[in-house]
Amino acid sequence: MKQRLLIIHGPNINLTGMREPGVYGSESLEQINEEIAAFCAQKGFAFEIRQSNHEGQIIDWLHGAIGKIDGIVLNAGAYTHYSYAIRDAIAAIRIPCVEVHFSNIQARDDFRRLSVIAPVCVGSIAGFGKHSYLLAVEALKKILA
Amino acid sequence: MKQRLLIIHGPNINLTGMREPGVYGSESLEQINEEIAAFCAQKGFAFEIRQSNHEGQIIDWLHGAIGKIDGIVLNAGAYTHYSYAIRDAIAAIRIPCVEVHFSNIQARDDFRRLSVIAPVCVGSIAGFGKHSYLLAVEALKKILA
Amino acid sequence: MKQRLLIIHGPNINLTGMREPGVYGSESLEQINEEIAAFCAQKGFAFEIRQSNHEGQIIDWLHGAIGKIDGIVLNAGAYTHYSYAIRDAIAAIRIPCVEVHFSNIQARDDFRRLSVIAPVCVGSIAGFGKHSYLLAVEALKKILA
Amino acid sequence: MKQRLLIIHGPNINLTGMREPGVYGSESLEQINEEIAAFCAQKGFAFEIRQSNHEGQIIDWLHGAIGKIDGIVLNAGAYTHYSYAIRDAIAAIRIPCVEVHFSNIQARDDFRRLSVIAPVCVGSIAGFGKHSYLLAVEALKKILA
Amino acid sequence: MKQRLLIIHGPNINLTGMREPGVYGSESLEQINEEIAAFCAQKGFAFEIRQSNHEGQIIDWLHGAIGKIDGIVLNAGAYTHYSYAIRDAIAAIRIPCVEVHFSNIQARDDFRRLSVIAPVCVGSIAGFGKHSYLLAVEALKKILA
Amino acid sequence: MKQRLLIIHGPNINLTGMREPGVYGSESLEQINEEIAAFCAQKGFAFEIRQSNHEGQIIDWLHGAIGKIDGIVLNAGAYTHYSYAIRDAIAAIRIPCVEVHFSNIQARDDFRRLSVIAPVCVGSIAGFGKHSYLLAVEALKKILA
Amino acid sequence: MKQRLLIIHGPNINLTGMREPGVYGSESLEQINEEIAAFCAQKGFAFEIRQSNHEGQIIDWLHGAIGKIDGIVLNAGAYTHYSYAIRDAIAAIRIPCVEVHFSNIQARDDFRRLSVIAPVCVGSIAGFGKHSYLLAVEALKKILA
Amino acid sequence: MKQRLLIIHGPNINLTGMREPGVYGSESLEQINEEIAAFCAQKGFAFEIRQSNHEGQIIDWLHGAIGKIDGIVLNAGAYTHYSYAIRDAIAAIRIPCVEVHFSNIQARDDFRRLSVIAPVCVGSIAGFGKHSYLLAVEALKKILA
Amino acid sequence: MKQRLLIIHGPNINLTGMREPGVYGSESLEQINEEIAAFCAQKGFAFEIRQSNHEGQIIDWLHGAIGKIDGIVLNAGAYTHYSYAIRDAIAAIRIPCVEVHFSNIQARDDFRRLSVIAPVCVGSIAGFGKHSYLLAVEALKKILA
Amino acid sequence: MKQRLLIIHGPNINLTGMREPGVYGSESLEQINEEIAAFCAQKGFAFEIRQSNHEGQIIDWLHGAIGKIDGIVLNAGAYTHYSYAIRDAIAAIRIPCVEVHFSNIQARDDFRRLSVIAPVCVGSIAGFGKHSYLLAVEALKKILA
Amino acid sequence: MKQRLLIIHGPNINLTGMREPGVYGSESLEQINEEIAAFCAQKGFAFEIRQSNHEGQIIDWLHGAIGKIDGIVLNAGAYTHYSYAIRDAIAAIRIPCVEVHFSNIQARDDFRRLSVIAPVCVGSIAGFGKHSYLLAVEALKKILA
Amino acid sequence: MKQRLLIIHGPNINLTGMREPGVYGSESLEQINEEIAAFCAQKGFAFEIRQSNHEGQIIDWLHGAIGKIDGIVLNAGAYTHYSYAIRDAIAAIRIPCVEVHFSNIQARDDFRRLSVIAPVCVGSIAGFGKHSYLLAVEALKKILA
Repeated sequence: MKQRLLIIHGPNINLTGMREPGVYGSESLEQINEEIAAFCAQKGFAFEIRQSNHEGQIIDWLHGAIGKIDGIVLNAGAYTHYSYAIRDAIAAIRIPCVEVHFSNIQARDDFRRLSVIAPVCVGSIAGFGKHSYLLAVEALKKILA
Repeated sequence: MKQRLLIIHGPNINLTGMREPGVYGSESLEQINEEIAAFCAQKGFAFEIRQSNHEGQIIDWLHGAIGKIDGIVLNAGAYTHYSYAIRDAIAAIRIPCVEVHFSNIQARDDFRRLSVIAPVCVGSIAGFGKHSYLLAVEALKKILA
Repeated sequence: MKQRLLIIHGPNINLTGMREPGVYGSESLEQINEEIAAFCAQKGFAFEIRQSNHEGQIIDWLHGAIGKIDGIVLNAGAYTHYSYAIRDAIAAIRIPCVEVHFSNIQARDDFRRLSVIAPVCVGSIAGFGKHSYLLAVEALKKILA
Repeated sequence: MKQRLLIIHGPNINLTGMREPGVYGSESLEQINEEIAAFCAQKGFAFEIRQSNHEGQIIDWLHGAIGKIDGIVLNAGAYTHYSYAIRDAIAAIRIPCVEVHFSNIQARDDFRRLSVIAPVCVGSIAGFGKHSYLLAVEALKKILA
Repeated sequence: MKQRLLIIHGPNINLTGMREPGVYGSESLEQINEEIAAFCAQKGFAFEIRQSNHEGQIIDWLHGAIGKIDGIVLNAGAYTHYSYAIRDAIAAIRIPCVEVHFSNIQARDDFRRLSVIAPVCVGSIAGFGKHSYLLAVEALKKILA
Repeated sequence: MKQRLLIIHGPNINLTGMREPGVYGSESLEQINEEIAAFCAQKGFAFEIRQSNHEGQIIDWLHGAIGKIDGIVLNAGAYTHYSYAIRDAIAAIRIPCVEVHFSNIQARDDFRRLSVIAPVCVGSIAGFGKHSYLLAVEALKKILA
Repeated sequence: MKQRLLIIHGPNINLTGMREPGVYGSESLEQINEEIAAFCAQKGFAFEIRQSNHEGQIIDWLHGAIGKIDGIVLNAGAYTHYSYAIRDAIAAIRIPCVEVHFSNIQARDDFRRLSVIAPVCVGSIAGFGKHSYLLAVEALKKILA
Repeated sequence: MKQRLLIIHGPNINLTGMREPGVYGSESLEQINEEIAAFCAQKGFAFEIRQSNHEGQIIDWLHGAIGKIDGIVLNAGAYTHYSYAIRDAIAAIRIPCVEVHFSNIQARDDFRRLSVIAPVCVGSIAGFGKHSYLLAVEALKKILA
Repeated sequence: MKQRLLIIHGPNINLTGMREPGVYGSESLEQINEEIAAFCAQKGFAFEIRQSNHEGQIIDWLHGAIGKIDGIVLNAGAYTHYSYAIRDAIAAIRIPCVEVHFSNIQARDDFRRLSVIAPVCVGSIAGFGKHSYLLAVEALKKILA
Repeated sequence: MKQRLLIIHGPNINLTGMREPGVYGSESLEQINEEIAAFCAQKGFAFEIRQSNHEGQIIDWLHGAIGKIDGIVLNAGAYTHYSYAIRDAIAAIRIPCVEVHFSNIQARDDFRRLSVIAPVCVGSIAGFGKHSYLLAVEALKKILA
Repeated sequence: MKQRLLIIHGPNINLTGMREPGVYGSESLEQINEEIAAFCAQKGFAFEIRQSNHEGQIIDWLHGAIGKIDGIVLNAGAYTHYSYAIRDAIAAIRIPCVEVHFSNIQARDDFRRLSVIAPVCVGSIAGFGKHSYLLAVEALKKILA
Repeated sequence: MKQRLLIIHGPNINLTGMREPGVYGSESLEQINEEIAAFCAQKGFAFEIRQSNHEGQIIDWLHGAIGKIDGIVLNAGAYTHYSYAIRDAIAAIRIPCVEVHFSNIQARDDFRRLSVIAPVCVGSIAGFGKHSYLLAVEALKKILA
């Protein structure tokens, strides 16, 4: 049976393509999701891709992954920098979670230099635009091997 | 065609009139909304007024404003001080947004001295009770002229 | 007529029993709720017990307590450490609220050492696992006497 | 008898029009003062408009307002960020004072994020260029009503 | 054989009843001790109640508890905020210790927001006046069960 | 020949009697100056008493004291907390200077807890209202003996 | 009947005369106490002078002053900088207390720049060697008048 | 002609396999280098792999890459956290550089939470052991495409 | 036509020669000004040399330089460390300004380690006594070439 | 005549052997004292060994050493980190004092990283269990030679 | 005999001309060195010019200057901001050392605002590009006169 | 077979005898090394003594100790305060390492108060000049027993 991935896009990522194209690229989230989907399929993963601007919704989805999902790719957007509640959710569910970011967050505003979820993720990948997601899928392929 | 404003009241502002009347005044939010509505109309604006205690909901509304709204008046309540997600939403949608507060937030608790959304707003108005909203509408009148 | 309590479990507390049993115990939230319910009943309280991972939902419930609830027991989970919006809600509704935690939060990560809601609660009880809730009910019995 | 306003421009504001036009606009202070004067007159206020680069002079003017002035509009320029002496003057004279800024000071250098005079002003308006002054006059109209 | 509790009142608590009655209540320490004594007896505990203003004396008492005492209730007063020596004593003796406070210390001065002894206590109870002690006895009943 | 004192009142002290009488007392500066004058005379000092809201003026006066004045009593008002220029002036002139304050500045706002001039004064006296000046004259009597 | 003063010398002050004479002078504490005694007598005060290196002892003496003492002169030595327990004692007993120091503590080590007891004292006098005590007695004469 | 990569291992990475195997894995650096080499070859890259414990040597190698190398994979080890000199070198040479780490550095000591080189790298990959390098090669494949 | 320089000495620099000769040298400001004047003349500059202890005066002079002065040498004395108003003036007038100091300010008190005006000056020269001024004139010769 | 040493064990050190044996070893303080005694004797020192949990008692002993003791070995336990009063005592008595610790305090909790007494001790030795004392005796042998 | 200067260029300065020409100019280090050499010769100095990216090498050169070199011009590059080892070397060799920088380091990144070597240099010159070196040679001419 | 020690002197220690004799003594490093050598021999150790100013060299030597050395004495000089790379090397090689310093580093500059290598050393000895090394050899004798 196929291993299952859950890819979660956090707040404002639905605007990708409109929002600072220099930072986030000019493809829409739909186009990016198609690439992620194709790549997951090619790597032999079943998967789901979701987006929400709601912290609580992201936590609910993380909880819902228990027993159903083998690996998580999470771009928590700005919640990365203050959502200790998402951090606790990741820690609680004990499913390997890879933190991803379009941009190199450490090269931007000061408040983006620290990630409160990093300490409970298996690893993090930042700065490669949409490729950050593909690299995370690749990484999970190795971790779940 | 009329320019359209979106007025958003953030968390706990629905309790206005009940909550520390010395700080927030004793009129209910309904009464205040009527004044805002009358003033918007008088200034020739179409408008919508909404309130939510949900950070994600406020972000969704900001996103929904793209292509439909010309100016935003936002009282983000306590989210003002930590919601980098709302900040990112304001920055992403590129619609002029005026930050308002009933009270002079800098004269209160230490944690209220910094606004994380201020750097992405066109301006801010604080300390004039319900009049803060009216002044913000006035300010948008000038900005959108 | 009976006095009414509202017991609110915040984010991730629905996972109790699964999540770090060394810290949170191995009983499920359902089992714990039964004990809380029995204890409330024994103390002569009417009560409601709710759980949400959504900050906005918790605020809505706090608002909804006005005029209906005499005392609140709140385990705000990780929101304890950054939700100034929940803090404002507690301050606004003027119903005695007791802050509870399963674990002794000051003995854990640095970011858990400060509670932003503590200054607006009547008191706080931490470190006694499920008993923290029962002691809070006991405390409200005394406060509401 | 007419209510009297005192409008004080602080340090470097005499250079308006020459100084970073992107931030401060390209009109000279004289032109702006004419607009302020016209607006005050239209609102039924008597008024005086002054400018000084001297902290002590600004304090003297604030003191001189006692018993003669009903409301103050103060753009304290860079003194905003360190003049506890101006702060004490505003607090001492007990005349409602509105803090104004051309630019949205919170969106600029870090040292401009905190205003030491804000806690003793009735309110603050920032980011609307010359309109910040007009909105402040408008706000005083409401406060002094 | 009965389990034995040691209740220690730290510095200035002997003045209870005289000292800021709004914060500490108006009963004398003797009256409060009678209630604690009665409650301990009712719960089936043997107990001792002591008070000292001396940091070293409190440490000596904690040491003396080894092998003789089953649970400790400690209101360390202001020592709570800087006595790493008391902290080391609690950690060394390995007897469950519950930290109590009359007032909700987090709602007062900044220096009262952190407890240096909390990390070595099993739990803490604050804000319920004399009832904090009774709740602590109740909590120890459960812990020592 | 008599020893000469220079008594300098800094910013906003001219408003004494009008400004927060609970903090500064209700006598006018003129009345206080008369008491200071009488006390200096009684102690056998020649003296001058001056007031300015201008940091530069205070520095000029300090410089002017060289070779003419034996001791200085300085209430630097809010400049106490940031005027490194006044500090340098006091250090440069090498005349014993006593720092005085009407109120106990450490019991007020956080920014008033540190004095940048204290390290270059011989001593400081705070909290005794107008008597702070008299005690400073007394102290200089002893220092200059 | 005479008003009574309690003069308390804190830790290490018994070594005065031996300890850094440049800072503390070369007279012994006995000699200084004689001067203080003579001055108290001359001012019409009954008085007691005590010295202890024990924080707890100083607190006990402060408590013992209730109902017997009209004013306190306290040189808390190094406890000045961390004894929140002494601070709480001063606040609790409600007897005017003047903080004194031999040296100008703000001109020395960084850790000596803040006094944790200052906020609960009526005033403070520092930098005048033994005269600091005499000036404090003088100040209490005025306060108790 | 093939694109060329430079892979640099910084300080202590030569001990990989001996050093905390739980964190760094138990393969030797030689074994890991073989995997990296094979992967680079497979991806069509020419490459060089080097290791040094010397900050200056790493800078020299970075400089030497100008005009010869198309992409860099850098594990700067502990220099990550303080070598502003390496940071300046990366910025100066204008060759895309990917920062890698074996472990998730944000989950370890506090001093490892910030990377001073991150702001001048195109992206960073951490937490995947030896795979971090392979993913970086993959990422450069995409960046250099 | 000759290029014109404005040399401004800030607060307390009029005391040069009297003030800590070890730090500032023993020549009077008049003597130093003669050397500066001779050097300016030799370099072919017209020039003016001024001194003020008044922050506002220095700002006025900076403003007055617009259109008349080609380069500025500014020793802002202690204002260096807090006068954001002088900083704004320098930024506004867009005339190259060289910051100078007699002493190496970074080797002295902590508060002298940061210059708030440095970011808006073309360069800074510190530590060479009166020669700092001559080197600054030399530097302006090169900049204005 | 023999040189005399004073060895002082501070708070909680009487529990050595019971308290975290991994950190402090499993020998009792009595056994350790015997080794210290034997070593002092072998090195030709007269000596006294004392233990107290009372800060004031330790200060009294330090004072009592004047004129009687040639060198001091002090393990101030947790007082190391906040007792400025002990620091002042060591500085005042001018007897060489060696700071010792069983464990390497810098490898433990953050609050143990700084010693407030270190700046007034001749040296410090930490991390060698009971041998820290013997090495300190050895060190004093060299210092007092 | 001629006085000898040692000019040291620190890390990344070998790339001058390639590296951010807006900040560092477009001349190569060789060209700049020729100008420095010509200027030293003209001023009558013997000299050596060296460059290294290695902190240890720079320290070795500084040590090697003892007894052979009369003055040092040091551009420590990024080591300026953290190399306490270079600082100790400068302090140890007791040869006057002038700190230079191409750019005005205080106008750039925050981490560049403090120089850890400044407190042990005789002076510093920053912001004049290659001229900073020439001005430093000029300054040493005066210091060594 | 004899146990082997490696004694490493870090940066600037080669200048011992020339560098601030008040702090480091007046013997040359050669003389000190002879004493260390004699003492090692007397204690039955084989040993090597090395000095380098290069951080990377020190790391290389630490690595080279694996399998050949039983104990290390390291005076890391100024690297003590920032070389996380040396810290990682010590942690990686798992050979007991004693940190030594000539002077009592906590009694000097602020930046010398923290040692970043202390947490990975078995212990530290500071303040006894050359004897610090001998005491460290003594300590290793005990640790390696």
